[in-house]
Amino acid sequence: RSALTEESANVTNQETLSKATLMNFEKFSGRHVGPRETDVEAMLRVTGLSSINELVQKTIPNEILFNKPLNMKEGFTETECLERLAELGKKNKVQRSYIGTGYYNTIVPPVIQRVILENPGWYTQYTPYQPEIAQGRLESLMNYQTMVTDMTGMAVSNASLLDEATACAEAMAMCFATRKSKRKHVFLVDDKAHPQNIELMRTRAGGMGITVRVADFRKPQEMDEDVCGVLIQYPNTVGAVADPSQIAENAHAAGAQVVMATDLLALTQLKPPGELGADIVVGNTQRFGVPLGYGGPHAAFMATTDKLVRKMPGRIVGMSKDRHGNPAYRLALQVREQHIRREKATSNICTAQALLANMSAFYALYHGPTGLNRIATRVHTLASVFASGVESQGHKVKYDQFFDTVCVELSSNLSTSELENRAGAKEINLRVLTAAESTTAAVCVSIDETTTEKDLNDLLWVFSNGGADSRVVTLSDYTDNSHPVGELVGYAYPHELVRTSEYLTHPVFNTHHSEAALTRYAKTLENKDLSLCHSMIALGSCTMKLNGVTTLKALSNPDYTNIHPFAPLDQAKGYYEMFEELCADLCEISGYDSVSLQPNSGAQGEYAGLMAIRAYLDSKGQQERNICLIPSSAHGTNPASAQMCGMKVVAVRNDAKGNIDMADLHTKVNKHSDNLAAIMITYPSTYGVFEEGIRDMCDLVHQHGGQVYLDGANMNAQVGLCRPGDYGSDVSHFNLHKTFCIPHGGGGPGMGPIGVKSHLAPFLPTHNVVKIPGGGIGPAENDGNSDQAFGMISGAPFGSAAILPISWAYIRMMGPEIVKSTHLAILSANYLASRLRGHYEILYTGTNGTCAHEFILDVRKFQQSAGIESIDIAKRLIDYGFHSPTMSWPVNNTLMIEPTESESKEELDRFADALISIRAEIKEIEEGAADHTDNVLKNAPHTAEEVSSDKWEHNYTRSKAAWPVTDSSTSKFWPTVGRVDDVFGDRNLRCTL
Amino acid sequence: RSALTEESANVTNQETLSKATLMNFEKFSGRHVGPRETDVEAMLRVTGLSSINELVQKTIPNEILFNKPLNMKEGFTETECLERLAELGKKNKVQRSYIGTGYYNTIVPPVIQRVILENPGWYTQYTPYQPEIAQGRLESLMNYQTMVTDMTGMAVSNASLLDEATACAEAMAMCFATRKSKRKHVFLVDDKAHPQNIELMRTRAGGMGITVRVADFRKPQEMDEDVCGVLIQYPNTVGAVADPSQIAENAHAAGAQVVMATDLLALTQLKPPGELGADIVVGNTQRFGVPLGYGGPHAAFMATTDKLVRKMPGRIVGMSKDRHGNPAYRLALQVREQHIRREKATSNICTAQALLANMSAFYALYHGPTGLNRIATRVHTLASVFASGVESQGHKVKYDQFFDTVCVELSSNLSTSELENRAGAKEINLRVLTAAESTTAAVCVSIDETTTEKDLNDLLWVFSNGGADSRVVTLSDYTDNSHPVGELVGYAYPHELVRTSEYLTHPVFNTHHSEAALTRYAKTLENKDLSLCHSMIALGSCTMKLNGVTTLKALSNPDYTNIHPFAPLDQAKGYYEMFEELCADLCEISGYDSVSLQPNSGAQGEYAGLMAIRAYLDSKGQQERNICLIPSSAHGTNPASAQMCGMKVVAVRNDAKGNIDMADLHTKVNKHSDNLAAIMITYPSTYGVFEEGIRDMCDLVHQHGGQVYLDGANMNAQVGLCRPGDYGSDVSHFNLHKTFCIPHGGGGPGMGPIGVKSHLAPFLPTHNVVKIPGGGIGPAENDGNSDQAFGMISGAPFGSAAILPISWAYIRMMGPEIVKSTHLAILSANYLASRLRGHYEILYTGTNGTCAHEFILDVRKFQQSAGIESIDIAKRLIDYGFHSPTMSWPVNNTLMIEPTESESKEELDRFADALISIRAEIKEIEEGAADHTDNVLKNAPHTAEEVSSDKWEHNYTRSKAAWPVTDSSTSKFWPTVGRVDDVFGDRNLRCTL
Repeated sequence: RSALTEESANVTNQETLSKATLMNFEKFSGRHVGPRETDVEAMLRVTGLSSINELVQKTIPNEILFNKPLNMKEGFTETECLERLAELGKKNKVQRSYIGTGYYNTIVPPVIQRVILENPGWYTQYTPYQPEIAQGRLESLMNYQTMVTDMTGMAVSNASLLDEATACAEAMAMCFATRKSKRKHVFLVDDKAHPQNIELMRTRAGGMGITVRVADFRKPQEMDEDVCGVLIQYPNTVGAVADPSQIAENAHAAGAQVVMATDLLALTQLKPPGELGADIVVGNTQRFGVPLGYGGPHAAFMATTDKLVRKMPGRIVGMSKDRHGNPAYRLALQVREQHIRREKATSNICTAQALLANMSAFYALYHGPTGLNRIATRVHTLASVFASGVESQGHKVKYDQFFDTVCVELSSNLSTSELENRAGAKEINLRVLTAAESTTAAVCVSIDETTTEKDLNDLLWVFSNGGADSRVVTLSDYTDNSHPVGELVGYAYPHELVRTSEYLTHPVFNTHHSEAALTRYAKTLENKDLSLCHSMIALGSCTMKLNGVTTLKALSNPDYTNIHPFAPLDQAKGYYEMFEELCADLCEISGYDSVSLQPNSGAQGEYAGLMAIRAYLDSKGQQERNICLIPSSAHGTNPASAQMCGMKVVAVRNDAKGNIDMADLHTKVNKHSDNLAAIMITYPSTYGVFEEGIRDMCDLVHQHGGQVYLDGANMNAQVGLCRPGDYGSDVSHFNLHKTFCIPHGGGGPGMGPIGVKSHLAPFLPTHNVVKIPGGGIGPAENDGNSDQAFGMISGAPFGSAAILPISWAYIRMMGPEIVKSTHLAILSANYLASRLRGHYEILYTGTNGTCAHEFILDVRKFQQSAGIESIDIAKRLIDYGFHSPTMSWPVNNTLMIEPTESESKEELDRFADALISIRAEIKEIEEGAADHTDNVLKNAPHTAEEVSSDKWEHNYTRSKAAWPVTDSSTSKFWPTVGRVDDVFGDRNLRCTL
Repeated sequence: RSALTEESANVTNQETLSKATLMNFEKFSGRHVGPRETDVEAMLRVTGLSSINELVQKTIPNEILFNKPLNMKEGFTETECLERLAELGKKNKVQRSYIGTGYYNTIVPPVIQRVILENPGWYTQYTPYQPEIAQGRLESLMNYQTMVTDMTGMAVSNASLLDEATACAEAMAMCFATRKSKRKHVFLVDDKAHPQNIELMRTRAGGMGITVRVADFRKPQEMDEDVCGVLIQYPNTVGAVADPSQIAENAHAAGAQVVMATDLLALTQLKPPGELGADIVVGNTQRFGVPLGYGGPHAAFMATTDKLVRKMPGRIVGMSKDRHGNPAYRLALQVREQHIRREKATSNICTAQALLANMSAFYALYHGPTGLNRIATRVHTLASVFASGVESQGHKVKYDQFFDTVCVELSSNLSTSELENRAGAKEINLRVLTAAESTTAAVCVSIDETTTEKDLNDLLWVFSNGGADSRVVTLSDYTDNSHPVGELVGYAYPHELVRTSEYLTHPVFNTHHSEAALTRYAKTLENKDLSLCHSMIALGSCTMKLNGVTTLKALSNPDYTNIHPFAPLDQAKGYYEMFEELCADLCEISGYDSVSLQPNSGAQGEYAGLMAIRAYLDSKGQQERNICLIPSSAHGTNPASAQMCGMKVVAVRNDAKGNIDMADLHTKVNKHSDNLAAIMITYPSTYGVFEEGIRDMCDLVHQHGGQVYLDGANMNAQVGLCRPGDYGSDVSHFNLHKTFCIPHGGGGPGMGPIGVKSHLAPFLPTHNVVKIPGGGIGPAENDGNSDQAFGMISGAPFGSAAILPISWAYIRMMGPEIVKSTHLAILSANYLASRLRGHYEILYTGTNGTCAHEFILDVRKFQQSAGIESIDIAKRLIDYGFHSPTMSWPVNNTLMIEPTESESKEELDRFADALISIRAEIKEIEEGAADHTDNVLKNAPHTAEEVSSDKWEHNYTRSKAAWPVTDSSTSKFWPTVGRVDDVFGDRNLRCTL
């Protein structure tokens, strides 16, 4: 017998075998981060540092350093994480849902699931701000907008909103913002609108000075001059299809605008809102092939008239032309947006649901108008069979004109509780109307495209009373002609509401009906877009890190995707257990005491946090506190959110080093001491610096009676190193799509849960349909009492629940080693800054010369020296195969670079090399070796068409244009259009195909 | 109440509501086929036909038409199919497996699962015969070959073989083919080789005149002059690691060659075969990240010396250069292959397992040498703990030098049956050695990378006897130092077998260790390759149809992927039920009585079918029947397969119309009447024609005592229209990867089950480890009696079981409507032919001027008129964004076009337009408007580098070169290299990085 191999010896020749060593399954952390151990050493050397520890000490103020490991469980391996995910999934109970209320079962075509939802080529991109390398998803979003305008009969649509309930609130805000007189402060809402829509409008109305009045739209409505707008749900929440024309006419006569909330599938058969007097139309596209996902994410839509388009919130895709005159898509009308209008913005929306909007657009073009109508016809006919069946069983169908939802008034032979028992026995969820919703015992049943014969028969069984006198009708009673077809005709739509106009007539909706054709179309679009599959996307403040496959697996698991958001909480135990784990970890990471998962985006988080502050101050009788201090360097959403809460924004100056000007802060807090509500601080700052004195700032604001909102956008620089809850913040949102790995989806989804200190917990959002625990989730949770909650923030109780497993999985796999991500995020930024220094100026750094996880490249002097602006460098980077860093934010005409921890040293070097090479190209202009206007930067990006065209009239060579690098390790990425003309696009607005 | 909408009315205003109409969920068939109903009408018009029926009548001889619907269940919707798939999956029982024997549990990295296995950009391509648009997977296969040569210590490797057992047989055949004297007919096999390897070599040896002699390699082996080669399993099947050098030396001394079958993971620690005297090394790469899949598909490997490379079967990727002198990968040494050497071939291998080879190569480069060694060290140490544990429980470890497999001789305190009970209680599968394998009660346990602490403790519990005297050892006994580490040192490898040489030193194995880096590398390679995601691939005889997402879902389901092929049959009940459904449908489709699922490729099917014929004839005492008639138009595999069965090939001529020359057939059958064994016919013919008289041919052969093998390659033209079993064939293989939707995987996997008439059923393959039913699966199945079986054809009992669900799903979703696929496959071919006629000549057609599902484009005259050959058109098609049709087969210098049913009319038109445009380009040469040598065809394909280079010296424009079409509906696909130099590559052979 001879010696062990050297390697085995390493394991076994220890005093005792360590179980940890023996079980050293590979952890995910080593796959999540880019640089290897040896790379880290090399990067430290270049940065002039001896260790990560030195970097941390130099970068983060000592007084706020969290000098111990996070108290979290050891990280899972990927295998363990998948096992736990499956285990938790089994704790959810997927029942058949007929709850409806804006959410319906749908068949996600497997091809769409695979080539869109499960494809990093579709989910890892950022918002298409660089249109030359985003024509694929811009085209798809244009399809989406066309789908929405066609179905609703409106002129224009945006590229999606967060959910239907917030879309209703945004529509209300539009009506208010465009009201014809100051007097018009009342918004009239259909009492048969979905309950979550009503409640969310109520919440939003508060901060904006709007009065929501709920009215019975079945009765004629007198509209007085106070009314700025009305919202009609069509078909309404109990399924009734009624003509909204009269209400609309009355509203218009009173100078009010008309919003309709509607359902796209119903509109295949019903006259569209655009033909019934609507000014704004909202709704959810979920049932077009997006799974329920326990509430989201889905894409809500908003469509409006040409007149109102400039007032519409959200992103809009428009058609423009490129430098060569070819058609090119781009984001239109950006001057409307919050990042430009700040406190003058009428909405703080800065996220869309691009990935989900794209899924629903693909669903529409896969089925085409004929297919959609076929689906709708079947849904309506089955609903009619159901209605006739329950009537023949002795019940009453309350509204005999419906699309998919039948409202059944129970006969005295069947009590609600007995019905619920029978439904439980069949694992069926129904919507039993509340006492407020119906004075009689009534139940709503929403049929959808998944309903089978067995489903229908089970439903009819549930509605039979089970007694000796019981009659159980089945589908066969109709197909076998026991019931004449005439019985169903009774449920036909009102004649005047039958749709006669065409829709989805564009060829794109009539071409890709085979799986092969759809796959190719999806791949053609995918290949036009630069995503994280191609190269790093160093977008400052956006944290484009790895979206690990394991983190995304819940989205392919029916135990997570097929639960209705209003299913009873005890059917979502797996989700809830996961939420508790996630919130506990978020609390540990942030130093907060409780978390609300409801906000669907960072901006929604800001709004929710400020509303919690508002409610807290109100509870103390401090209604007069309404000043919100915001540094001028803040994200534009900050002031937009503040004004939505009814706060007055007061700016605090930044000093020459980019830090908050402490003197000015002192002045402002003193001046507004009696009215100070809050300060919103981004930390580390939007300039990428851990400002000294953050604790002092927080203390100062507290001394003056204000609360501290710490914007969590830059959390990726803090995790494991410092905690907002420790150094004085009261509330923050977590951008789960930045720090915690939810993919950006090409422009959404996002998620912005908020963490709060315990004193704010009682005020966290509640939900009016599902009774979620008051006080958020976490140590401060208060057993369901939500009396003090400020209201609702999203239509679903836990926001976009289906993507929370992504962040849960990332955190659980990293465990306490999550601090490594932060280390490497900061190191990578400093490494890049070190490599670029000497070629470019770095705008702001901390006291020791380091930056946080991002930094600003100052390129302003090139305007003078070479006529080059940041946009030229951004477009030239495309020729090098890179997406631009953030352009002109937070400082105009600069580039904000954030590499994240997931990029390898090789990739960081490739990126640095590109920027250094571009600097040399600028020098050529400075020195006159290249032309001032006809140069590789001004003409960038260069398309394949251009560099291979027969004519070449530039002052530089084709190879210089197209092949600036000779690195063969990556393939050339070709932009599909040349530089896009923004001005032309806005002047010649075209937002549909 | 008013009228129903028009659409609803269509459904409900019928005499009775039809349940079928009400439940008209969309069927998959409408998504599988490309043309819409209106397209079909237009296509018929162009083809000059009034109906599909007329097309069928004109194309298929009336005498063989199957004039009724297939007797199959109605097609599933995709939803129903997925439900049934999940349901059947639940009938499988996934137990923890320690069976080993060449198959091991492995952790498939989720990123590889998603970006390779579940990505149509990786699985839909064909074999990389057009290297200019296949550099991605060629590079990956080069990585694979480098991985294999590095690990085995050999000079060259092929790009994979079907499985380890057939690789052993191929190695044996190589030794035999290169033997130094005719006398050398003995092949000496290690009795401790895996049992399936031994049995498969025995089967193969029969037909080739080799005598397999199994010997105990623990004893010194006298090698006489009869021996042409030896096979050593290293480590062997019971886990022992012993030095094979002495056996190898003896073999070499006797003029025999040395084959070693080995395990790549073990070779991270053990001296590689290349350093121990091996001439050929084979094995399985499954445990490198490819799921067990109940037997496959996995990639087996073969490596050899420079000297033997030209004798190595299978595909080999080599490095060559392109027209511009840039390095370019390609398939090397193709002159060795069966399609060229026909009956002189030494192997009929024409499929690789490219997709699986790529997965394992990615696994290797994801882990790198350090990661692999870490995994191996843990496996070995855990195995050592297990060995020590069972010894301390009173058992004996039979071989104390092992890598991962411990052979335990049970103490008398624990009977085998009690052990099996205890294992059953823990849901554990062990390998209990058979009486033939061990005279004492012995059990083998194979540890692998998935083994956890709980697993190990469960195992040790199973080996405790459960009685009062029982001692249950656990891992903690070692980690808590109850057992000194020294106990484990006893299981160290022999000193002389400790690996000292480096491996996987190339940067590619040391760069892509983060998930982001790996994703980008995989995507970079993917984007170099043209796949079905880009455009149609009209490869004649390859049937590149849709690979629907739903059909592929089993590959993502652990209930299917995590079963060991040698698990007891009752743990695979779901699989077996699916097999029965699949085989019943295949029988209905083909008119056969039974099916064997074992053959892993079409060629294996041919071999299996001929062996069944051989065994049948032998059973009737007709050993003298050894002539196999094969038309000269046949696939090259046909004669290669025939000679492997020991048959003599006699060619039958084709007449001027391409049909089999009946006169010649009469002559040949008469001449060989006494010795006639079989005829192999492809139907419809390889010329794409349903020959008249097929029934007569079959009858004629039968009259002369021969059997009919009908090659199933062209089954896609027959399904539902005619059945081989009806018109006289006795046996066929089904190319499941052609007709039945298994994706080609970029060059494998494939699957070639065979169907037979009942008289051949008793002779179908058996399996020596798992007792599968004799007589195949289907009506002729005979309850497990396989006494008459000719032997084994694959290492696993049901071949590549994990991909059988693909064909099952396709067939079950199509139901009797599967005939629509056939209709449209034939219509599409005739439509294309009609569009091309007038521009090109179509070489052969049937009596009524129609073709079957494919046709030959005759381009031979352009050689004279313009110096243009088929290869020039093939390469020029790349500039148009298309993969070439099959080149120069079955007729030299022609193109064989098969569009399949899955292509839309738009895509067919795009393809026809491209070919018509190319014809015009040829005309320019013919007319002198274009240069004879410097033209767009001769220089095709044109890369982006070339057309955007600073110099342009061609006689035509850049835009003509690169942008021959202006269709904007698809993106330009750029080849990444120019035309590849085949001759240079073979002259300067380089097959590793």
